[in-house]
Amino acid sequence: MKALGTLILLNFLFVFTMNSQDRQYPEQARMRPEMSEYWQPQPPVVTPGNRSQAPAAAPSDAIVLFDGKDLSEWQNSKGEAAGWTVHDGVFTVKKGTGDIQTKREFNDFQLHLEWLIPEGITGESQARGNSGVFLQGMYEIQILDCYQNETYVNGQTGSVYKQTPPLVNAMNRPGEWNTYDIIYTAPTFKADGTYRTHPRVTVIQNGVVLQNNTIILGTTEYIGFPKVVEHGAGPIRLQDHGDPSAPISFRNIWIREL
Amino acid sequence: MKALGTLILLNFLFVFTMNSQDRQYPEQARMRPEMSEYWQPQPPVVTPGNRSQAPAAAPSDAIVLFDGKDLSEWQNSKGEAAGWTVHDGVFTVKKGTGDIQTKREFNDFQLHLEWLIPEGITGESQARGNSGVFLQGMYEIQILDCYQNETYVNGQTGSVYKQTPPLVNAMNRPGEWNTYDIIYTAPTFKADGTYRTHPRVTVIQNGVVLQNNTIILGTTEYIGFPKVVEHGAGPIRLQDHGDPSAPISFRNIWIREL
Amino acid sequence: MKALGTLILLNFLFVFTMNSQDRQYPEQARMRPEMSEYWQPQPPVVTPGNRSQAPAAAPSDAIVLFDGKDLSEWQNSKGEAAGWTVHDGVFTVKKGTGDIQTKREFNDFQLHLEWLIPEGITGESQARGNSGVFLQGMYEIQILDCYQNETYVNGQTGSVYKQTPPLVNAMNRPGEWNTYDIIYTAPTFKADGTYRTHPRVTVIQNGVVLQNNTIILGTTEYIGFPKVVEHGAGPIRLQDHGDPSAPISFRNIWIREL
Amino acid sequence: MKALGTLILLNFLFVFTMNSQDRQYPEQARMRPEMSEYWQPQPPVVTPGNRSQAPAAAPSDAIVLFDGKDLSEWQNSKGEAAGWTVHDGVFTVKKGTGDIQTKREFNDFQLHLEWLIPEGITGESQARGNSGVFLQGMYEIQILDCYQNETYVNGQTGSVYKQTPPLVNAMNRPGEWNTYDIIYTAPTFKADGTYRTHPRVTVIQNGVVLQNNTIILGTTEYIGFPKVVEHGAGPIRLQDHGDPSAPISFRNIWIREL
Repeated sequence: MKALGTLILLNFLFVFTMNSQDRQYPEQARMRPEMSEYWQPQPPVVTPGNRSQAPAAAPSDAIVLFDGKDLSEWQNSKGEAAGWTVHDGVFTVKKGTGDIQTKREFNDFQLHLEWLIPEGITGESQARGNSGVFLQGMYEIQILDCYQNETYVNGQTGSVYKQTPPLVNAMNRPGEWNTYDIIYTAPTFKADGTYRTHPRVTVIQNGVVLQNNTIILGTTEYIGFPKVVEHGAGPIRLQDHGDPSAPISFRNIWIREL
Repeated sequence: MKALGTLILLNFLFVFTMNSQDRQYPEQARMRPEMSEYWQPQPPVVTPGNRSQAPAAAPSDAIVLFDGKDLSEWQNSKGEAAGWTVHDGVFTVKKGTGDIQTKREFNDFQLHLEWLIPEGITGESQARGNSGVFLQGMYEIQILDCYQNETYVNGQTGSVYKQTPPLVNAMNRPGEWNTYDIIYTAPTFKADGTYRTHPRVTVIQNGVVLQNNTIILGTTEYIGFPKVVEHGAGPIRLQDHGDPSAPISFRNIWIREL
Repeated sequence: MKALGTLILLNFLFVFTMNSQDRQYPEQARMRPEMSEYWQPQPPVVTPGNRSQAPAAAPSDAIVLFDGKDLSEWQNSKGEAAGWTVHDGVFTVKKGTGDIQTKREFNDFQLHLEWLIPEGITGESQARGNSGVFLQGMYEIQILDCYQNETYVNGQTGSVYKQTPPLVNAMNRPGEWNTYDIIYTAPTFKADGTYRTHPRVTVIQNGVVLQNNTIILGTTEYIGFPKVVEHGAGPIRLQDHGDPSAPISFRNIWIREL
Repeated sequence: MKALGTLILLNFLFVFTMNSQDRQYPEQARMRPEMSEYWQPQPPVVTPGNRSQAPAAAPSDAIVLFDGKDLSEWQNSKGEAAGWTVHDGVFTVKKGTGDIQTKREFNDFQLHLEWLIPEGITGESQARGNSGVFLQGMYEIQILDCYQNETYVNGQTGSVYKQTPPLVNAMNRPGEWNTYDIIYTAPTFKADGTYRTHPRVTVIQNGVVLQNNTIILGTTEYIGFPKVVEHGAGPIRLQDHGDPSAPISFRNIWIREL
């Protein structure tokens, strides 16, 4: 009942704030996270083909962002050394050290990355292996253990977070590597800072198409509507969601500028 | 304070409903109308060129939807005779008779219509000459007196209602006719009922571009997010907003299928 | 038979040139103009509504490119004063002085212009009142007397020249003014100079839609395929086609940057 | 010189036909194949990552079009049994038996196929391992040995044939399998049979993006401009180019309807 009390209080505050705003513009009303979550219809579950669990080498023109050895291409949001853990040719989210992002910035690109949900993971819905890859540091493609774990569909693996669910659920099971192949087209902007052309994304997980040149509507907000924010080139960012569940690992990350 | 009491009650109901849903999918959380309203930045105000106040004839291949004489091309939502008032070559919203819509249904089209906010109109924000034209009966382009009347920008004249504000505010003053020239491209749908291609719209008011092939995200809801609903051809619908303010009039409506 | 003789000669030259190109890249084979002309199906003829023959004033935020007085906003291709003739509030192509173009350069825009084919014009197909408006100095929207004058459809009035025919033929007759309302979206380019997003154009003639956000494929060549050429902002250019037929006139030209 | 003689004759015929066509529409002038071939700039060469040479299994929701055993999903253009040769889990073009196509027809899809240029292949430009995959039986994505073999760029592997070159050349060498992952969006048509929305295609070869949601302009003609032809669902067709060079092989073909 505690959360509910807070909710009522917020409504009080909100309404009185509105009344006291004489000739100023009202701010947009506060939303709750679950207002932008929907659960139906759940995308069909597809079992991917049994792809090799050995990582493939990068194409010759790719920028290798992680080759199994170190995080020299990455930093935290303050520009300091990335605090995640490198071991056995992979790196793993270190809870509480925050997101990491590439030092380089990109416009249009093809991105390959591989990620693994550890065996024996527990938790449910969003609290099970939650991370994400942010394109140009702005637009999150969700990473989550959705193997036999339902959540709101616009928050499941391969969704444009809180916007567009994936066409299907193509998860490998915990303990197996998943691949992401992402083709991203950056937005262009009008003089007033709104989109002239929207960002677009194609996402392929484990060889199965999840998003086909999907229009990205704006930032991928936890609460409320997507926002349109003018920006230029940006990094690839990986999320430390700070979950109690076992941390997820990454390997074999490369990018090709298009 | 009455509205506030209701609001709190709704939140109670909502939370308890959530708790009692055992293994069912949660419904999307209830929103309030003002959560999808934003006020900044206000589009620039443009004074249109002084166009003739005499209506132009329709092109030879147009279907004339109102020629000044009768509402024979229109009906109410129950399929009964349209109850709005025809007089002096125009027709006027008759408060309380409900929306009217064309008997014919359309896919892609060019639509021309003219509308007039009566002189001496009162009220402010959305309560001043509120109506709207719904494309394929689904997607509302707002009609409102926005002459020296600010409202939320995604609800002002020429907005895709609660979605995309117009590029500018190109209103004629009350007592002068406004023209709308609308070019609409219908959506196509995937087998699962979601958009394969989004609907698109170009809106020109009084010769000034307000929307340029804007992507329509879904239905234009008063409360909450746009919804994606599969549909085929649909009518042109005009809104009876039931306002206390002076009713608005229409004339010279024609459409060309593209 | 003279033209035919030349044609055969060109083919001879072409073939021998090909044979002598040992390890060089072959040039694209020379085409003849009529290879990129097609005549079927002819777009339907639409009689526009009888619009006022008095020019409308420009919106308040427009840049007026011709207000009836002088060509101070225009120049020839060498940057010298525009040599066309101003009289009676209009200006007229002066044969042999070459194209004229705006001194200003534009990206995305809404352009309004009005043009008149003189009464008593003679000639047929392309040799009857031929001119054109080039968007960003690159992409021609055809201007021609197509009133009861057939030509290849991708070269008639409102075509993206040698690319896309208009949806309909909405000509006023010689001696009456025609209006063009053009909404243009500039291309963006990849690093290699090819289109990242194509240019797009909507064309409305006399209130009738001819092109609806049509993709422009490249330059509008008289001979051969469209070319993709990297460019930035560009002028509005009007064509002196050098025809023996009576010259065409323009008035009331304004533009709004979008 | 024989070809040249024919060419001149054709020109004669063409011109006289024009003269004798009184009030009929002229046909579009005849072109030669090399008029729609261009050679510059050659896309960069990229060495793909060393992917497994073992075929991956299909996702669980795919329609398997070839599983290594028989051509029961295929037929020739007359609807008779496909005449190509099945051996060792692959099938190989049998010169002179003509193209083969799926019995099923598709709209939007994700297609996976693998193809191999035999070691020791000879010939150059288009005469070296030429085949192709036609989407909806209409639009050819080129298959050719482009490993150290230059040809016109809009005819090289991964081109939309005679339209759009690939972004890069990502060939494996003869004797190694190549993969194609193709995401195709079918066109929609206007009432007059022209495109309402163009077909679109994304092509990934050996894990490298060659086409990113490229607009397909029309049919992929050997001679002349793309044609716009109204059509519905269509098969996947593979080309027997009838070349003297060693025949190419295919394996592991599956498709998912989107």
